[in-house]
Amino acid sequence: MAIDHISSLFAKLQALSTSDHGSVVSMNIFVALLCACIVIGHLLEENRWMNESITALVIGICTGILILMLSGGRSSHILVFSEDLFFIYLLPPIIFNAGFQVKKKQFFVNFITIMMFGAIGTLISCAIITYGVAKTFKKIGIRSLEIADYLAIGAIFSATDSVCTLQVLNQDETPLLYSLVFGEGVVNDATSVVLFNAIQSFDINQINPSIGLHFFGNFLYLFTTSTLLGVFTGLLSAYIIKKLYIGRHSTNREFALMMLMAYLSYMMAELCYLSGILTVFFCGITMSHYTWHNVSESSRITTKHAFATLSFVAETFIFLYVGMDALDIDKWRFASDRPATSLAVSSVLLGLVLAGRAAFVFLLSFISNITRKSSKEGISFRQQVIIWWAGLMRGAVSMALAYNQFTLLGHTAKRANAIMITSTITVVLVSTVVFGLMTKPLIRFLLPVPSGLTPKRKNSTANIVDSASPKAITVPFLSNGADSEANLEPQESSYGRTPRSIRDLLSTPTHSVHRLWRKFDNSFMRPVFGGRGFVPIERGTPTERNTQNQWH
Amino acid sequence: MAIDHISSLFAKLQALSTSDHGSVVSMNIFVALLCACIVIGHLLEENRWMNESITALVIGICTGILILMLSGGRSSHILVFSEDLFFIYLLPPIIFNAGFQVKKKQFFVNFITIMMFGAIGTLISCAIITYGVAKTFKKIGIRSLEIADYLAIGAIFSATDSVCTLQVLNQDETPLLYSLVFGEGVVNDATSVVLFNAIQSFDINQINPSIGLHFFGNFLYLFTTSTLLGVFTGLLSAYIIKKLYIGRHSTNREFALMMLMAYLSYMMAELCYLSGILTVFFCGITMSHYTWHNVSESSRITTKHAFATLSFVAETFIFLYVGMDALDIDKWRFASDRPATSLAVSSVLLGLVLAGRAAFVFLLSFISNITRKSSKEGISFRQQVIIWWAGLMRGAVSMALAYNQFTLLGHTAKRANAIMITSTITVVLVSTVVFGLMTKPLIRFLLPVPSGLTPKRKNSTANIVDSASPKAITVPFLSNGADSEANLEPQESSYGRTPRSIRDLLSTPTHSVHRLWRKFDNSFMRPVFGGRGFVPIERGTPTERNTQNQWH
Repeated sequence: MAIDHISSLFAKLQALSTSDHGSVVSMNIFVALLCACIVIGHLLEENRWMNESITALVIGICTGILILMLSGGRSSHILVFSEDLFFIYLLPPIIFNAGFQVKKKQFFVNFITIMMFGAIGTLISCAIITYGVAKTFKKIGIRSLEIADYLAIGAIFSATDSVCTLQVLNQDETPLLYSLVFGEGVVNDATSVVLFNAIQSFDINQINPSIGLHFFGNFLYLFTTSTLLGVFTGLLSAYIIKKLYIGRHSTNREFALMMLMAYLSYMMAELCYLSGILTVFFCGITMSHYTWHNVSESSRITTKHAFATLSFVAETFIFLYVGMDALDIDKWRFASDRPATSLAVSSVLLGLVLAGRAAFVFLLSFISNITRKSSKEGISFRQQVIIWWAGLMRGAVSMALAYNQFTLLGHTAKRANAIMITSTITVVLVSTVVFGLMTKPLIRFLLPVPSGLTPKRKNSTANIVDSASPKAITVPFLSNGADSEANLEPQESSYGRTPRSIRDLLSTPTHSVHRLWRKFDNSFMRPVFGGRGFVPIERGTPTERNTQNQWH
Repeated sequence: MAIDHISSLFAKLQALSTSDHGSVVSMNIFVALLCACIVIGHLLEENRWMNESITALVIGICTGILILMLSGGRSSHILVFSEDLFFIYLLPPIIFNAGFQVKKKQFFVNFITIMMFGAIGTLISCAIITYGVAKTFKKIGIRSLEIADYLAIGAIFSATDSVCTLQVLNQDETPLLYSLVFGEGVVNDATSVVLFNAIQSFDINQINPSIGLHFFGNFLYLFTTSTLLGVFTGLLSAYIIKKLYIGRHSTNREFALMMLMAYLSYMMAELCYLSGILTVFFCGITMSHYTWHNVSESSRITTKHAFATLSFVAETFIFLYVGMDALDIDKWRFASDRPATSLAVSSVLLGLVLAGRAAFVFLLSFISNITRKSSKEGISFRQQVIIWWAGLMRGAVSMALAYNQFTLLGHTAKRANAIMITSTITVVLVSTVVFGLMTKPLIRFLLPVPSGLTPKRKNSTANIVDSASPKAITVPFLSNGADSEANLEPQESSYGRTPRSIRDLLSTPTHSVHRLWRKFDNSFMRPVFGGRGFVPIERGTPTERNTQNQWH
């Protein structure tokens, strides 16, 4: 009876769903689910298997099942998956925050390795997946796809999802792995853009070395311009806030300006057909290096937490969304006619994702280890396994790209396309849930840390000014300027905590680049754009602080 | 040549405007303009005439003119005015923040006066405007409007725009006037909803006392349920955050939960056809009284500034938007045929707005003064003039309602409707720019304050933890718990600063209500829902703090 009543109520709501009131209903359910995800995610925090994204995904799937039952098998989602929503509103805050909170030192020390993984690795993976798909799909019974579709599949499934990476790897526990896998995820966005353009503009049948050169040139151009645009916007915000001293009148303007200019950098990159992800990532890095130090103390705390929160909400939103969308009945109708084919396609894709990533991770890690002088700083085999595993997840980006490729202009009616969509959903769910669930235990198994250290370090970034005890709040403000600043940095300074990394840094060839950069930064950039140690002259003497000015 | 080139470029962009790339262009321009508004608003901060909203409005109009010239008179706006965007995304953060930062003491002390202004005042104003419009429009030459349209015009133009009020009245300089005019703006939203429903459901020709009673009952029902929904959501958030101690793991969850639950309260009110504005306002008040005290220190700073910033960006967005939309060429085409009629309609409307507000402000202030025991706490004539003047502005809410009433279902083709739209725009622009520009000088003329006090008190809320000097940051954390808490409250505590208001408070009949509430709050509400003095036990003893627990 109750179910009947709810069912009829739901039918009424469904009928309304084209009207305004229907969208209000959907939004209510969605916002309530987001709240539930946050509370449940909090309760499961101590659980060693789960993470926030899997919680959201599972809640999304459960809601989808519930809606499917209540609506009598007619519908299972309350919001239609929209690429715009994803690429215009949800992705930019996540990537910006990643750049804003990234450990810059780790990122730039491993820059060459990251570039190799992101550019060459993605190409290798794409080639393997394309080749494998082209060889096997005909045998399975998928014949209507063209060579451009195969290439698109290669591009879609070769890209690591940086949002998923953020969920399974911890910047404080495994800084090297985090910077490698996440950095790769950011860089390969540029590769994907170049790949997609290449697929559309080049004649596939005439592959010769000049096209390879053209491709390489395109990648370099795209990477450089996207990065420069991000750095430029970040510097502009630093200059404006420093020069006009915006914080004099209100904190609100500083925060609003940082938020809007970061978003502007992303939109400008999209406008110029550049890689918005790369741009907003480097804008985040620049802002944390210069702008963040020019704003008032309360703005620092506010921006640090507010950007993290916006990113957190966007991430939860995406996984909830993907989970709810996964059960969309329309998509499964075609695929359900031939379950064996669907299963085969999904398995082949999963296998190729595993193989494609294995091929380049171990190969490129080997090359990277050869070029390094000392063996100590190389990537160990165990670390390679984690890099391979942690980058296997495919997420909302893959889904958005698959929708774009296989549902354009009513193209879905074709059976092969419908199967591609459902297979993509399967790969996304399996890789996120299964691979995701196993990443934390895998890391703990392969890289055991001294007990007691992990939980402490894990919370340290989030809780720097975060405890209810007054000591934790008072200390950063009472200690000398240099210390308090280091504690409040968006990314945690690791000096004095891991002295070995400084020694490592000294022995690498990147050190001379670093020294040159520091000199340039101190003598030219900081006087113009502010940054640590220049604007807040009142706190501590500049000399005190210069000893700590490494990579920040 | 350059203009030609830009013009052709613009034509190209215009052609693209239906595609995705076109909307990217629009968003780029819009976000860049928002940044410009913030920077220019900062530069004009010291100017005694301008305020943020007028700056944004003027920039919007200038951009509109520029686009009109570049596109050769074809188009003048880059984003189409959307009611949804306004009511679903922009209005909730503004009203929530107003509730979150309002001086609760002032608001509740004047509660009865605010209710009178918001409910009875709006009705008087609506009646006068409807009567005046019905009498004069036929003479001007507008004949196609019906009696429902006249009533709608009355409802549209009788509502004070709370967003505009926030811009011209300062909570710290003129707390009484701010709470009266802004509170009225919030309460009359409920009146407007009742009025609109009444217009649609009652037979206008059969007006009798029972309808009046029905109307009054509806208002009471709507007001009570909306308020209770807001309070309930606020208490729920306080309970969840206190019980689960969300801040233990991360600040992000606390902030995200507060933001999402506040938004949920607004959407739930809209879902149940209640007044979302009232709901989210009371949700803000409840959250600042309970939830805000349950979260970690960094969350307090973050939420305080982040909510203010979101509200600030939304406000700037609205005024920029209204400014750019004002020049939309399609709307002016009909009106331009008969400029004299348009001018007459606009003038009549402006006159009626002035008269309608004058009628109830002076009348109700007189009644309010009679009921108060001592004459000292009454509303002086000068204050009445400011209340009258500051509430004259009509803003985006009026525009959205006018669009809703006069452009429905291609209804715009009628000349009378087109003229109503352009007249609404004229009234909005004139009232916001002219009345807005003159409010600050008027207040300074009628209520002169000791020189030197104003700028200091004005910045005090914004800059409590906002200065670059270390003293301003350290002091709140170093002083004893009670003081530091008072300083960090979203609304500034006025105890010890204006001792007269405490004496006033003691002599009013509301004091006994206040005492009862405090008793109830301390003995029942706070143990369950947290709030000031209960969770942060570590800081200061509860006894110390209870002496200050008045209305907070």
